[in-house]
Parts: sequence; C-alpha cells; structure tokens
Amino acid sequence: MRVLETVEGPADLKKLTDQQLTDLATEIRDVLVETVTRTGGHLGPNLGMVEITLAMHRVFDSPQDRLLFDIGHQAYVHKLVTGRAGEFGTLRQQGGLSGYPSQAESEHDVIENCHASTALSYADGLAKAYRVRGEDRHVVAVIGDGALTGGMAWEALNNIAAAKDLNLVIIVNDNGRSYSPTVGGLATHLTSLRTNPRYEKVLDLIKKNLGRTPYVGPPMYEVLHGVKKGLKDMLAPQGMFEDLGLKYVGPVDGHDRQALEDALRNAKAFGGPVIVHAVTKKGFGYAAAEQDEEDNLHQVRPVNKPRGWTDVFSDELIKIGHRRPDVVAITAAMLHPTGLAPFAEEFPDRIFDVGIAEQHAVTSAAGLALGGLHPVVGLYSTFLNRAFDQLLLDVALHKCGVTFVLDRAGVTGDDGPTHNGIYDMSLANLVPGLRLAVPRDGKRIQELLNEAIEVDDVPTVLRYAKGEVFPDIEAIDRVGQIDVLRRSGKDVLLVGIGAMAATAIDVAQRLEAHGFGVTVVDPRWVKPVDPQLVELARDFELVVSIEDNGRAGGCGTMIAQALRDAGVDTPFRDFGVPQEFLEHAKRAVVLQAIGLTGQEVAREITEQLTQHAEALSEPDTAGDRPGT
Amino acid sequence: MRVLETVEGPADLKKLTDQQLTDLATEIRDVLVETVTRTGGHLGPNLGMVEITLAMHRVFDSPQDRLLFDIGHQAYVHKLVTGRAGEFGTLRQQGGLSGYPSQAESEHDVIENCHASTALSYADGLAKAYRVRGEDRHVVAVIGDGALTGGMAWEALNNIAAAKDLNLVIIVNDNGRSYSPTVGGLATHLTSLRTNPRYEKVLDLIKKNLGRTPYVGPPMYEVLHGVKKGLKDMLAPQGMFEDLGLKYVGPVDGHDRQALEDALRNAKAFGGPVIVHAVTKKGFGYAAAEQDEEDNLHQVRPVNKPRGWTDVFSDELIKIGHRRPDVVAITAAMLHPTGLAPFAEEFPDRIFDVGIAEQHAVTSAAGLALGGLHPVVGLYSTFLNRAFDQLLLDVALHKCGVTFVLDRAGVTGDDGPTHNGIYDMSLANLVPGLRLAVPRDGKRIQELLNEAIEVDDVPTVLRYAKGEVFPDIEAIDRVGQIDVLRRSGKDVLLVGIGAMAATAIDVAQRLEAHGFGVTVVDPRWVKPVDPQLVELARDFELVVSIEDNGRAGGCGTMIAQALRDAGVDTPFRDFGVPQEFLEHAKRAVVLQAIGLTGQEVAREITEQLTQHAEALSEPDTAGDRPGT
Repeated sequence: MRVLETVEGPADLKKLTDQQLTDLATEIRDVLVETVTRTGGHLGPNLGMVEITLAMHRVFDSPQDRLLFDIGHQAYVHKLVTGRAGEFGTLRQQGGLSGYPSQAESEHDVIENCHASTALSYADGLAKAYRVRGEDRHVVAVIGDGALTGGMAWEALNNIAAAKDLNLVIIVNDNGRSYSPTVGGLATHLTSLRTNPRYEKVLDLIKKNLGRTPYVGPPMYEVLHGVKKGLKDMLAPQGMFEDLGLKYVGPVDGHDRQALEDALRNAKAFGGPVIVHAVTKKGFGYAAAEQDEEDNLHQVRPVNKPRGWTDVFSDELIKIGHRRPDVVAITAAMLHPTGLAPFAEEFPDRIFDVGIAEQHAVTSAAGLALGGLHPVVGLYSTFLNRAFDQLLLDVALHKCGVTFVLDRAGVTGDDGPTHNGIYDMSLANLVPGLRLAVPRDGKRIQELLNEAIEVDDVPTVLRYAKGEVFPDIEAIDRVGQIDVLRRSGKDVLLVGIGAMAATAIDVAQRLEAHGFGVTVVDPRWVKPVDPQLVELARDFELVVSIEDNGRAGGCGTMIAQALRDAGVDTPFRDFGVPQEFLEHAKRAVVLQAIGLTGQEVAREITEQLTQHAEALSEPDTAGDRPGT
Repeated sequence: MRVLETVEGPADLKKLTDQQLTDLATEIRDVLVETVTRTGGHLGPNLGMVEITLAMHRVFDSPQDRLLFDIGHQAYVHKLVTGRAGEFGTLRQQGGLSGYPSQAESEHDVIENCHASTALSYADGLAKAYRVRGEDRHVVAVIGDGALTGGMAWEALNNIAAAKDLNLVIIVNDNGRSYSPTVGGLATHLTSLRTNPRYEKVLDLIKKNLGRTPYVGPPMYEVLHGVKKGLKDMLAPQGMFEDLGLKYVGPVDGHDRQALEDALRNAKAFGGPVIVHAVTKKGFGYAAAEQDEEDNLHQVRPVNKPRGWTDVFSDELIKIGHRRPDVVAITAAMLHPTGLAPFAEEFPDRIFDVGIAEQHAVTSAAGLALGGLHPVVGLYSTFLNRAFDQLLLDVALHKCGVTFVLDRAGVTGDDGPTHNGIYDMSLANLVPGLRLAVPRDGKRIQELLNEAIEVDDVPTVLRYAKGEVFPDIEAIDRVGQIDVLRRSGKDVLLVGIGAMAATAIDVAQRLEAHGFGVTVVDPRWVKPVDPQLVELARDFELVVSIEDNGRAGGCGTMIAQALRDAGVDTPFRDFGVPQEFLEHAKRAVVLQAIGLTGQEVAREITEQLTQHAEALSEPDTAGDRPGT
C-alpha cells in the first residue's frame, strides 16, 4: 500500500516516520508526473514544492492555521495531502479538480488566485483579523522569488515589517525563476544570499547542532537567530529583508524536509512576522523537468501545438523590427508565452523583460515612447487588469504611442475564472483616445499590427484569442475601416468582433436557412466606433454584435451608445460573455454553456425577428407600414 | 529687482552667485506662500522642494536632460524657474497654469501625473530609450519617501538596479511623510539611514573635505563612495538600496543646496543609476507649515470648509463602529482626507493605514474579510483605478464582504484630469456580484452605508462627490430599492444617479415648464439594475439617465442593456461625462462645458421629444397610433 493512500488529511502526515515521508515525496512526484503529463497543468512548480508543502502541513495545523499559496498553480501537492489524491486524475477537467486552490473543494484552501504577488497582502489581512478577534492562529504564505518582483508583494512586505506582533510566516520559494529566470536587483540579491559558501557551511553546522530538536521555543530561537545574525554580519551581505525590519531565516535547502521543518518551527515560535528563505529547484526529482532550460516544464500541455495566434504575431513583429529600428518590446516575465522570444533573439538590445511587474511594464513603455521609440507591450489579456491606471494616465493622458498586444483574450477555459480575458475591451473602452483592434484571423493580426505600429500619438490595443489561429476569412468589400464578410440581405446586420467573426458567419448561414437576409461585418478597429458602422445600421431591421468580452462595458454597449447618439433607432442586440466568474472547462464547452455559439445566437435572433413580424401583423400596428 | 524676475529659464540659474541663489530661495518661498494661500494648491511639498529643484536645474540641462517629478504637485518651484513665474498667479484657475507639470505649458515638463510612484518607471523607460537611440542624455527623477511605499516604485527599482549602464539619477525626497507620516518597514529603514549621528558627522567631514569642489569626476567619486561605503559597514545599517545593487549617495541635507549640487554632480558623473537620498522638511522655511503637525499644510484650500460628503460618512462610520466590533477601516495614506481619522481615534486597533499602496489596501481587505471582519476601505475614486484586478479577483471572486467608500467621485475639477473620479462606476460595473450604491445626499450616505455594511458575501462600492454635501432630497415614494423623488407624468422617466439626482430635478422642472409630464427616480443601488426600474421604463415615452461618471461603460450603458435584455423598447438617452481628459477648472465650469447641467439636459430632451412629436404628426407615420 502506498503511503499516499493512507493520507486523508494533514493530521495523518504528522504520524509518518522519516522513511515514510521520504517514500511519500517520491510517490507524490510520480503522481504529479503521471497526471499532469496527461491532463496538462503546471508540473515544474509543483515538483519543486513537495518538501515545502509537507513541512508546512506537519508544522502548522490547517485549517486552524491558514496556508496560502501565491499563484495557486503551486498547490497540487497541497491538494494531494488534503484528501484529494483520489480525485487528482480529474485535474482541470470539467467538473473535476481545479488547477488552483478552491474554497468549494476544501476547507484547507483559502485563496484561489492565479495572479501573482497577492498572497502576502491576504496574509497580512488574515493575520490582522485574527489579532483583532483575539484568535491564536498562524498564517503561512508561500511566495516565489519571481512573484516578489511584483509591486503588490513589496507593498505587503513594507506593511508586514511594521506589524511586529502578527503570527505570520512567509516562505520565499526561491528557485531563481518566475516563468523565465527572475530578473532585477532582487534576484541578484537573493543569489548573493544563497550562494555564499562559507555562510552555508556555518549554517549547516548550526543546524546540525541546534536544529534537530522537534521544537525550539522562543529563547532557543533567539539564541539561534542571534548567532546567525552575528555570522551574517561577518560572512554574508546583510539582507534587505532585515533592512526592512523583517526577521529572516535562511537560506534553507527547500528539498531538505527536516531542515524546513526546523526552520518553520522556529519561525512559528517567534511570535512575529518571519521570512523563511527556501532554495528550491523547479522540476526537482524529475530529470526531464530539471533539465528543461526554458522553463523547467513550468506548464505542460497534453497535445502537440498547432500554429497559434501568438505565432503569427511573433513572426510579424520580427518583420516589423527589421523595418523599424525604433520598435522595442516589453514583456512581464512572459517572453516565451507571449511570442516575444524570437524578437528577443533577433534584437537583444530592444527587448525588456521587467519581471512580474505589469504596472512597471506599462509605464516604462510610456517612458520609452516619450524617449522616441515605439514600444510593443506583450501581455496576457487578464494581466492588463493590473495596469489600468497606468494605461489610462501614464500612457494615454501623455499621448504615448504604445502598442499593447493582448494574448489569451476572450474565453480561455481550462485555467478557470482568473485566466479568462474578458475584461480587456471594457477597460480599453474607458481610455480616452485609445484605439482598439481585434483581428479575426492570422492575416488580420499581420494587417492590424502594422496599422497599430503606425499610430504614434495614442495607445493602441490589439487583442486575440488563445490557441490555434482561425483560418483566414477574406472580405468581400470594405466600408470605411470595416470589412464586409458576407452580404445576403438587410434583415440583420451581424457585427462579428475578432474571433467571433467566424461565429457571426455561422449565425448568418443559419439565419439564411430560415429565409432572412443577412450582412456580416468585421469592424477590425472596434474603438472608436466607425461612423460608417452607425450609418450602415440605419438600413437594417436588427443589428447584432457578437464578442467574447464581458457584456458589461463591452463593444456591444459602445455600438449601442453610438447608435443612440446618432439617433439611429434600429433595434440592437448584444451578445457577449455574461458578467460572471466562469468555471474551468474547455473553451468550446464554456461558450456552449453561456450561449455564445452560432446555433444559440441564431435561435435567439430568429425568435426576436419572428416576434417582431408577428407584432407587425397584428391589426392595431399593421398600419405602421402602409406599403406592406 | 528680485532675482526671480531675472530667471527666464534654467540657463539663468547657472549664472547666479551663491548669495543670489540664497535670495532666490527666499523669494520663491514668498511667492509660494502668497500665491497658494490665495489660489489653493499644494504648499508644504513645494516649500520642501526649493533647494532640490534649484540644484537639479543647475547640475543638469533641461530639456536636453529630463527632469521628472513624481506626483507633480511638487513641481511648483520647477515652474517658477522655467519661465512661468509671471503666470504663477493663475495657478489652478481655468485657462491658467495647471497644478501639475504640463507638456502643453513647457518643454521642461515631461510627466503630468499626480498619481504617486510612477516617475521611476517613466525614468527607466526614458533612459532605456536614450540608450537604444545612442543619445547622451540624463534622466533625473524625484520621488518622495511616501511614494516609495507604492508597489510600482519597487518594480521600477528592481529593474533599474539591474540596468547598470543607464544615465539615471533618482532623488529620494525624504520628508518622512506621504500625506500622513510614511508607514512601514521602509520608513523605519530610511529613518535608520538618516538618523545615525556618527554616520552623519563623518559624512559631514567628508563633505567638507572632498565635496566642495565644483566637479568631482568618476575616480574621485569612487574614492568618496568607497569611503562612505566602508564607513557605512561600520557605522550604519547597510542600506537596502545597495542590497538591491543600486548605488546610494546620502543622506544629504535637502535644504543645503551646495551639498545637493555636489551629490548630484557625483551621481551624474557615475555613469549608472544612482540614488541620492535627500532629507527635507515639508513646509521648510514657513513656520505655519512646518508646525502644522497634521500634514505640514500639504494642500491649502482658499476657503473655509463647509460640511462635506466626507464628514457625513466619517460621523456615520463611528456610529457603526460602536455597534459593530467587526468593522475595521483601511486607508492608503489618506487618513484625514477620506474622513477616517475620527474612526482611527475612536478605534485605534481597528484602523490600518497601509501607505500609498492601493493594491495592498484592497487585497489585505480581502484577507481581513476572510478572517471574519468587515473592512471599510476609504479611497479617492481615482485611486480605485490602481486596484481593479485586486477588487475583481482578490475580493469579488473570493466572495469577500468589503465596503469600498469612494470619495471625490465624479467631476472634481481643480486638480485636473488625473483627479476626476469618472471611471469608478464603469469599473464597478465589470465586477461580478459587486453591488454599487450612489447616495444623492447626506441622509442617503447614512442609509446606504448601513445597508452596505450588512452585505457580507460580495463587495459593495459606495461613491460620492467632493466638497459640500447636497441638501437632503426626500423621496415621495419607494418602488423596489428605488426612491421616487418627483412625479408629474409619464412623458419622461429621469434616472438621476447620486449627485445628479439634484440635476434631474432641475431638468424635471424645466421640462414641466414646457408642458411635459416627468417622473424623477434615484435608484440608490445602481448595480445590479433593479428589475423594477426596467418595468417602470415600459410606461414612458423616453427614459433618460444622468450620471457624473464617464459615459463609456457607465450606469447609462447598464440600464440600456437591461432594457434591451427585457425587450423594453422605450427610447433611452444617457447623459454623463464624455470619455475625454478634462482640463482643470471648477466643477461647475467643467459640468457647464460638457453639457451636464439641468439647462442643457432639458434642452436636449425637449428637442428630442419635439422631433418625435413632429415625426408622429407626419402623414406617412401618423397611422402608427390609430387612436391619437
């Protein structure tokens, strides 16, 4: 019988022998590799978290104590040891386990976020709440060195450092990487802390002599800590955490469970905020992951990768880069996923990876633009949420020509509610002057990216979907900036936005089969609303917009407003994503569930048109149209 | 003749003698006090910036070198010495000088932002642009110690530390305050740097012996710096800036112009990013400002303060605090302006000032809520822009009951485009589950705040205007959650939101004078849209919403969408703030300029109703309504 099968919750972990724990770690790694290579998900980060997670659960008492995982994708091990090993095979499948912690799944899960750098702020709040309520509970937050480059983490550290009496332990899981290797001064500093060999050696000695007791109370801890601090002054650069006033323990080997437990017991006993610096190896214990230089199998996808929207952008930007020496690119720790790696190779002096730091990415882009360059900022759509103020004031108010390329826009599915890119267009719609382009296929990415790069006095946003790029859909006509994709009549004007242009054509075919005449257009530039679109709308019985952005403040609302302002009273209908947190499932499944399919949209339009026709044929309104 | 009158630009400063510069500093302080006590504006911060500004302009060559002021309200002195002394009396008046830097005003102005912590990111981008373009220009950014608590500043420092070859000088203007005294570990650390007397004394010695030469080149600098560093290891805690890998010079007396010039010349010659730590006194040289304990006359208002929206909130929260021991409050360095100071006095254990750190404020509130408390987060509306992602995911996704109280919502006027609170409702509309309340007067603040505090499973937002609270407007009826304020007929349904309810009544009176029957309602809770509002709309000829939020994604768009979804085809009109950056002027002047007055709204509605009536009376559509 495997040890894992005997672990129904954290209490069981506390009964295991050293040997059993070692076996358990091996079993967990086997399960991670076997499951994640099949279901997809995050492998490298979780392989690196095995010993830390075991130590956390052995030293603290969840759920009485609260364990927080910054960027929840490092919580698979936590799931396995909190009663979810049996269901682990359903990871990221519809109805199965989420790829992130989930309050609905377990009382041991607290925060569900997959956006980085938030856990310390949660921890600060939780620990303060327990202090106010007089509850004796510990809060433990694990955060990666990469996530520490995010400004939120700094804001939290600054506050936690001043709150001397909080029962709060921060574990820095330092693997030297965000997705890519961690950048910046902090990374260098952490390296200096963890690579001083004399310091390591002395620490080891202390550990061997003092650390192996199961519990070291406050006085012993003070001695240990005092000794360390003294040694540090001699042997290692004094850490910035202590400069800030935070107690610092480490570095600890993040794969030495016993050493981790000792450090955590000491930290727990201290009675104030403590940072435990654990050095880990992403992908630890699985040769293929350890050796993967690019990202240690950070995220594994179960299928082969066809040509994606990202690839088209990536190739086109290289071409632009050769033509335009003023074009530079910025990424926030996402060089590979956003398709900027080839640009970086081709133009190493013109790429800036700022770490997990979206606010800085956006405002430093404003600086680059003020300095005479044209920056292209590559972000996931969902992460633009983190830099709205910077986009609005630092870029747009300052009339900076910056091109934002938002990848993974619309419904992305598997990664759950925090990864869907369904807010970006609503945010873009708020920004004065900003121009928003939404390509429907690969050829339009090329076309619109080139048009965006020519704009130098306002920001532009270009956003596209995740995954395989759609086949090109050629226009049959162009009106203003608008591509006409299909024209069979003037009953319904279908405005298909970006990836939903293909859906609009599907809708059109279904409506035509019911005898309606339909015109399908793709506005290409959806902000500002093209006056020609408004004029076009006058001629139809019904105007319909389809987008895969949230309906609130989405393109539909902007078109409706433009129609109202122009006094166009053609009935209008807007289809988009309902303003809800969408559960994880494949994109197609989610679209089906929210009614954003050709079939469902066609059905609703048919219903509306039929009702309208029936209303017209009633006696008291028949006079409406004397000629018919 | 005053020295100031001879200064037409930075070049003139370089010709002045020591005595003339000293006289100039005195003259500048006189002008600041005389002008700002009359026009309103920021006094304390600018009195503290006199010597730093003079030194910057003497050591660097603006506009060839770029001088950036974080939170532009510390740039008055810069305005005075860059050719704008003559116009300075028009500060913050319509058509006059902006209270912030302005590219339109001067080639010496670069960033116009008044949101804190952005300057280092701009500086990073600008310096990188000059490196890419091969231009030999320096970038100098001044940032306050308070603004360093903002996460963006950390993100920038982390990047700048790694960019060894940037011509970039950061001046930390350390006055120990944000608006309130700076909080957190960083503040303590800066204090430890600046208050070590032995260190100061030795520095002084070095300065006297080495620093008084007009130019110290790189080798001399290295010597000086090396000596300092050695001393620091002995005498003072090694600074976190150097831990990060940033060259650090200081602390320097920020009111000793010569010492500042020396430090800046050294920094300029170094050839990489340098931090110059200048210790200043907010309000320096003006006894009344220096002695003002609360905020050193941070911002001066020219008139006496009548009872404001803020005061009503402030008083009501105290009452709630006595009744509900689980209610706690959070501010981001705005204890006094947001009206939380009395709560802090009454409940010192239940207030958390997190510094200029809106992201952390919001997510730590989520933590407090997860820990069983009900946090009230007091923010200016404009600063919610900085924490949208945190509101969306950290609070709303996690179903946290947090009450956000947004002060200075709507058109605020004098402080220009970056202080208007015209995005908050659009952002709130995007957040699933969130409930949004907009009080029209003081009594409604009390009522809605109490209702909001009762909500414990989703966030609520309560937003109100700046300045004097409006007289109470009593309802004549309530339908669902909706207050009916006036009822004279069913031609027009006017939906007046918050402060615009008063405007709606003005509109109603004007329409009634033209013979129209009007009903005025205040929805109180504008999100979600009350189904009863939708039902009510069926009975009218025209529905009109009036809000002082931006029209894009505003409440008007949400009501229109709700009407469409319910198949209500009553014509709808939404009045709100156009999606533009509004120039500074008094609120009333701005509202007039954008047509958001009772007179203008009534005129447009009358026009539309008249056109509609004319259309109905035309022969070919007269059959539309057989009975009329």
